[in-house]
Amino acid sequence: MAIVLGENRYGKSRVRVMKVQREGARHEVFEWNVEVWLAGDFRSCFEDGDNSCILPTDTMKNTVYSLARDCSAASMEDFGIELVSHFIETNSHADSAGVRIVSTPWKHIDGFSDAFTHASDKYDTTAVTLSRDGLHSVSSGFEKLWLLKTAKSAFAGYMNDRLTTLRETQDRLFGTLATGEWRYTGTDLDYNALRRRIESALVTTFAAHDSLSVQQTLYAMARAALDQVNEIADVHLQMPNKHCNLVDLAPFGQDNPNEIFVPTDEPHGSIEARVGRTDDRWKE
Amino acid sequence: MAIVLGENRYGKSRVRVMKVQREGARHEVFEWNVEVWLAGDFRSCFEDGDNSCILPTDTMKNTVYSLARDCSAASMEDFGIELVSHFIETNSHADSAGVRIVSTPWKHIDGFSDAFTHASDKYDTTAVTLSRDGLHSVSSGFEKLWLLKTAKSAFAGYMNDRLTTLRETQDRLFGTLATGEWRYTGTDLDYNALRRRIESALVTTFAAHDSLSVQQTLYAMARAALDQVNEIADVHLQMPNKHCNLVDLAPFGQDNPNEIFVPTDEPHGSIEARVGRTDDRWKE
Amino acid sequence: MAIVLGENRYGKSRVRVMKVQREGARHEVFEWNVEVWLAGDFRSCFEDGDNSCILPTDTMKNTVYSLARDCSAASMEDFGIELVSHFIETNSHADSAGVRIVSTPWKHIDGFSDAFTHASDKYDTTAVTLSRDGLHSVSSGFEKLWLLKTAKSAFAGYMNDRLTTLRETQDRLFGTLATGEWRYTGTDLDYNALRRRIESALVTTFAAHDSLSVQQTLYAMARAALDQVNEIADVHLQMPNKHCNLVDLAPFGQDNPNEIFVPTDEPHGSIEARVGRTDDRWKE
Amino acid sequence: MAIVLGENRYGKSRVRVMKVQREGARHEVFEWNVEVWLAGDFRSCFEDGDNSCILPTDTMKNTVYSLARDCSAASMEDFGIELVSHFIETNSHADSAGVRIVSTPWKHIDGFSDAFTHASDKYDTTAVTLSRDGLHSVSSGFEKLWLLKTAKSAFAGYMNDRLTTLRETQDRLFGTLATGEWRYTGTDLDYNALRRRIESALVTTFAAHDSLSVQQTLYAMARAALDQVNEIADVHLQMPNKHCNLVDLAPFGQDNPNEIFVPTDEPHGSIEARVGRTDDRWKE
Repeated sequence: MAIVLGENRYGKSRVRVMKVQREGARHEVFEWNVEVWLAGDFRSCFEDGDNSCILPTDTMKNTVYSLARDCSAASMEDFGIELVSHFIETNSHADSAGVRIVSTPWKHIDGFSDAFTHASDKYDTTAVTLSRDGLHSVSSGFEKLWLLKTAKSAFAGYMNDRLTTLRETQDRLFGTLATGEWRYTGTDLDYNALRRRIESALVTTFAAHDSLSVQQTLYAMARAALDQVNEIADVHLQMPNKHCNLVDLAPFGQDNPNEIFVPTDEPHGSIEARVGRTDDRWKE
Repeated sequence: MAIVLGENRYGKSRVRVMKVQREGARHEVFEWNVEVWLAGDFRSCFEDGDNSCILPTDTMKNTVYSLARDCSAASMEDFGIELVSHFIETNSHADSAGVRIVSTPWKHIDGFSDAFTHASDKYDTTAVTLSRDGLHSVSSGFEKLWLLKTAKSAFAGYMNDRLTTLRETQDRLFGTLATGEWRYTGTDLDYNALRRRIESALVTTFAAHDSLSVQQTLYAMARAALDQVNEIADVHLQMPNKHCNLVDLAPFGQDNPNEIFVPTDEPHGSIEARVGRTDDRWKE
Repeated sequence: MAIVLGENRYGKSRVRVMKVQREGARHEVFEWNVEVWLAGDFRSCFEDGDNSCILPTDTMKNTVYSLARDCSAASMEDFGIELVSHFIETNSHADSAGVRIVSTPWKHIDGFSDAFTHASDKYDTTAVTLSRDGLHSVSSGFEKLWLLKTAKSAFAGYMNDRLTTLRETQDRLFGTLATGEWRYTGTDLDYNALRRRIESALVTTFAAHDSLSVQQTLYAMARAALDQVNEIADVHLQMPNKHCNLVDLAPFGQDNPNEIFVPTDEPHGSIEARVGRTDDRWKE
Repeated sequence: MAIVLGENRYGKSRVRVMKVQREGARHEVFEWNVEVWLAGDFRSCFEDGDNSCILPTDTMKNTVYSLARDCSAASMEDFGIELVSHFIETNSHADSAGVRIVSTPWKHIDGFSDAFTHASDKYDTTAVTLSRDGLHSVSSGFEKLWLLKTAKSAFAGYMNDRLTTLRETQDRLFGTLATGEWRYTGTDLDYNALRRRIESALVTTFAAHDSLSVQQTLYAMARAALDQVNEIADVHLQMPNKHCNLVDLAPFGQDNPNEIFVPTDEPHGSIEARVGRTDDRWKE
């Protein structure tokens, strides 16, 4: 029974690049953390130490810098498409190439054209893959979006077994540190404008929803994005339940009408789902 | 030659508390991460295992929760003052009590009165200490304030020794992840309003300054805050120089007119200073 | 075109439990960080807010504690099997249940039966899944295993394109922070003993290998584990190339015969692969 | 009332250097993370943007690399002494220079002379300062030393106030993530050997001590080090109380004879103290 190489990939991670656009007096700043990878038949490298079809990961890094200089990408999604196209063209032994980019949210300091601070603690992401047969997949999303509801969140009517001690509630805090990703159905889109519309649908639905569970709110959020934006095939959301525990103040002779809580990081609930369209032609 | 106990302190750290104010339809959320400590003559505890003058740190935690319920503090500085006052009153063996609070920057989601997201990735801080003789010290500040200038930053004319290879520049990126702290000269102040004015002075000066060095800009920032706000005695700033290195694209036949940089975390310059008034009566 | 729920799962993460065995004078300590999840047809929860088939994640947490008390598992893999069996039995609407455990490496302080310190900074892991049809999958592995070779590591003969500037080397440092995972072909095994043999094969091969690339060494390591341990179906390794860059000391009039390096975290190469047996009957 | 520069310092942080000693077939590896700083009268830099007395922090970085190549330091403490001596000699405007080094704990993989893994997750540290008047201060210590006792730890007889709910215990877990630092009374010492003796005294005392409180055990540990090693003036220990909470299994019909605990990170007790000799001539 032989031993064989299975799925594999290699690339360069944490390639950081900052591009400063200096058109006129107003500067723009883009800071991207880029991951590049190639996959395909690299058996001779693994089994025989034959490096002739390995493009050094150092070259991948150089490529990010060089293309960042030349490209006039309107979005990080467009930059990702340029990168994977380059790598598929120049690496004939690769079956597919992929890029993932996380962007740092710089914004102008009010009143200044060349000074910046962070706009938030949410990071925008994109993942682009290209197969040798030409199929692009472009996904976008975000990481570390903090959301909190102080009303319209209940949790009741759930299963009970002999180990259940949780009490039902009609009014709890609902906090999460959300991660989201959606897949586009095309590659020639105004990704920045679509992102704004999708994120607005997600956040507004979170805020407005009369929540019976994290699951139900997650689904409503994804559904709203799909309803409002035709250019996406599905939405995947991860919404850990960052529990805020009501403090028992009775031992101190005090009541606690849903006012004083202990926010916690662990343990936390983990709820995730993909919501899509029935005729999804962009299935993985 | 005897062995003796020197300076010592004990307390509770990372006491997280969230307070939800539900006055009318519009909710407000405060999330504080509190550290409490006591210092004084605790020799019998350390040397003899006599616990009779140790207030359990678990009780300190309970105290944070209980006072958060009762207090009507207008700011986290005021809450800190309430806490240290309580601990000095109830711990006769303690010479001093201190509190440090880091607040999480929640803001309303646009258009909603009971849903929130983070306003930024900057954290506001305060440190309050109270001695048995009654002296309050109230400091406030911030952590993790990202700042970046893409113009008006030079570094030239510095010392050269045989190990110096850095080249002078009249136009570099200047990025920092600033920490700041200032000491108030009183304890009955509108801390929230003062914070806004101080931070505005710091950030605006950073953006406007024609920088010859990190040192010079740091000093100008602190000076502006002291000039504009009489209620503070001094300002301490830490401004690590998060170097953005210009990429050499010449090997690829490209120029790089200050456009493509590699942001780095290490190594980094470390510049810090305290700037105060000559008749500082709040010296440590 | 309807909108529908796709793949989904939920559970509890970061459930920490420490078990102290006090058989006789010698204590043993196990510290596990447990993640539990269920998957299946939870459409009514997501779409309608029907919680009647949701077992609260708080109950999952309780279950970890309760089973930890009762179980006499000889390994964390056996504990994982107990947990998923419990969850499949008690959640009729779930198609599959999974557990992932990360263990903290406590060891006795030399000469003491009831005092401990960490044995290393490597964390052992296991992942167990159980489908309703009865199929167990038991994987084990590790996280954060630091490895470094100061000899027998070359990288040459690779592809060159116009963006390649890397120079070939016959003698570089090879450092990695490895993650590994292997799938067992059975569920009634001495997991602790097998882990020791597998890890020994991996580490010894890393140290002994005459490396032409990270890829080749990774493959040799996985192959050695498969050669020496019949009870596993495959091995997956992730070996980021934590580059140690040779410092150019020539500007200071010094040579540098492979002695002074700068270790770096970013950017880093990313090499990962699965190596298996040709008649792998445990394919995912 | 004028505004003036107060205390200030600047330098370079996170300068990572790895030195590979290749004497004969057996290699040795030292990985150090170095921080360098200078303090003194730098008013003209801050106030006027005069850089003529600023040694670039980039040069400090180069100096670490260059001296690492030339030096034959037997320990990182000796390397630190070489560094501060260099900086005081070459920076006439500096009143004092300091270095802090954190070392990564590499050890040989069993049976191999040129392959390594981490020995533990404890990091050794040193801090060396030199004033222009010639006074050296050499401190050494460690970070992130995990310690756990499963016996001989009580906490009772403490203060009670109306907010106290903690129950007394004669048998609790005592876990900590200790940081330690001691000051040497000389500069021409076998630092490696002394470190081993001091750490052995600390760890052995922790394990053997019949603990009535964290405070008492901390003091006993420091005292043991001072008793056994004459070359140190004092010991400073920080021992956060990483609480392990006994789980209440009664709701599930189970007892819990000090067997099942939840380890927690927050909130945590914070206990720290310096223990010294009465005629301490190395006071700060």
